[in-house]
Amino acid sequence: MTSAASARSPQQRRHDVLRRLEHDVDAWVATAAEDGAAPHLVPLSFVWDGATLLVATPATSPTGSNLRTTGVTRLGIGPTDDRVLVEGTAVAVPPAELPEEDAEIFAGKTGFDPRLLAAPYLFFRILPRRIQAWRTPGEGDGRELMRDGEWLVGD
Amino acid sequence: MTSAASARSPQQRRHDVLRRLEHDVDAWVATAAEDGAAPHLVPLSFVWDGATLLVATPATSPTGSNLRTTGVTRLGIGPTDDRVLVEGTAVAVPPAELPEEDAEIFAGKTGFDPRLLAAPYLFFRILPRRIQAWRTPGEGDGRELMRDGEWLVGD
Repeated sequence: MTSAASARSPQQRRHDVLRRLEHDVDAWVATAAEDGAAPHLVPLSFVWDGATLLVATPATSPTGSNLRTTGVTRLGIGPTDDRVLVEGTAVAVPPAELPEEDAEIFAGKTGFDPRLLAAPYLFFRILPRRIQAWRTPGEGDGRELMRDGEWLVGD
Repeated sequence: MTSAASARSPQQRRHDVLRRLEHDVDAWVATAAEDGAAPHLVPLSFVWDGATLLVATPATSPTGSNLRTTGVTRLGIGPTDDRVLVEGTAVAVPPAELPEEDAEIFAGKTGFDPRLLAAPYLFFRILPRRIQAWRTPGEGDGRELMRDGEWLVGD
């Protein structure tokens, strides 16, 4: 059992979260259908631009449909013993409206370029509203790092 | 890029899924609020008994509340490049109604015994209805291994 004394500081957790957002490739993306009771969950590749996460999914997939109609998601990033949870709002961006540079960065990091596919894809920009991060065991307290879109800890 | 020729057989995928259900400790558990549009996602420890997954969460947590009211969940297990997705139905089991042996196995595997906690917890038995498994890249096809609660491949 990790003692409370070895738990990371809030600043360290924020640093580690940003590092994971920069370097991790995939997130578990949870969404819900607008009419309720139907959770969906898929792994999607993402790119972090310092303020938002960019993902892409077929426009008619459950995740694409849920994001378009509800505009909210909850993401799990990292292994389950070093977890980062992000709640955010999502805005659809058709590929034709995504800046060329963003599309190139997305394709470069993820190895996946939705612009080249026959199936209609949508990009979504996800703006974090709440971020939590904790390792297990021992870091249950102090997990909340961002609330209402504002960091609770300095950098 | 993994070629299609190196994709695992359906039998191998089923074998690997069962191995992960036996040995992995945590799953990402997605649920949705009954009134819609609100996805929830948390990592929970689980035990697989050969037919169902057993998890535990505070009765009043979002996950506990969602599972009680909707009875459905979607789980992500494994790293995002070796993913197992399980859709299932969930039934609440109060700790006092869980067989002693099941509670002991749960505590032994997860290091976590809800019976000892002051906060009221609920166990949930999750019965898989659909299972998908694929590694990336290269195993997008043939990911569906169980549908409507029935394995699509022999063992």
